[in-house]
Amino acid sequence: MNQLTIQQLNVGDSATTKKAFTEKDVLTFAEVSSDYNPVHVDKEYPKETMFKKQIVHGMLVGSLFSAIFGVQMPGLGSIYTKQSLKFTNPVYFGDEIEATVTVREMMIDRNRVIFDCVAKNQNGDVVIVGEATIMPPKESDNA
Amino acid sequence: MNQLTIQQLNVGDSATTKKAFTEKDVLTFAEVSSDYNPVHVDKEYPKETMFKKQIVHGMLVGSLFSAIFGVQMPGLGSIYTKQSLKFTNPVYFGDEIEATVTVREMMIDRNRVIFDCVAKNQNGDVVIVGEATIMPPKESDNA
Repeated sequence: MNQLTIQQLNVGDSATTKKAFTEKDVLTFAEVSSDYNPVHVDKEYPKETMFKKQIVHGMLVGSLFSAIFGVQMPGLGSIYTKQSLKFTNPVYFGDEIEATVTVREMMIDRNRVIFDCVAKNQNGDVVIVGEATIMPPKESDNA
Repeated sequence: MNQLTIQQLNVGDSATTKKAFTEKDVLTFAEVSSDYNPVHVDKEYPKETMFKKQIVHGMLVGSLFSAIFGVQMPGLGSIYTKQSLKFTNPVYFGDEIEATVTVREMMIDRNRVIFDCVAKNQNGDVVIVGEATIMPPKESDNA
């Protein structure tokens, strides 16, 4: 588990995680979030929609960015202050999603780092684009 | 389950949902999102942080907005295009969170509705403030 202070980060630094969400992940997320939208949890309903098949909740896919921030970059002790998400394409069960965050701007006096966030599927289609603001840990020696 | 077209919405319309997240919810969300940040999943680590106790993932709390959009307002057939979230206060296990969305702006020619989003705890402290863009269902007769 990383723990990078703002002094240890540079514009352009990036980190990536990958995940293919299963039907079980989606049903489990529906339970914990109370988001039982049938486009996610119902086998028949999506056939009548533009998506044709069940899709993964956008907020679940977007959580991959949170996972990167908390564990990889900046890692342990990071504080999440803002996240924006634009959902640009549907994510289907089993799609291999690659989420990447890249340092865009550093506000060293305020200890805040702005990251560009992008998630793509196995075909290279962008499924989410967004931006996050993170307060990195102030010290890296108490891990 | 509602299914409101843009013609059935008005600026100022709002909908609310409530949830108290449990430790089990948070551990389950960590599994499906891969977000095992110890501030959420570890009993000891948070004692050394400004939070003192384990906190709920911000993205999980923010999912309450998604739950409202997909089920209550506009409801069935809504398409989620954007969500921004600003995390303003920590959410602890058992906090009674009330999430509310309110129609702020309607772009009828593009079939898009902008909602203000706010989540508060049982003390009235704002824990998330944000904004969402939703495409409501175009017809309400295919439910």
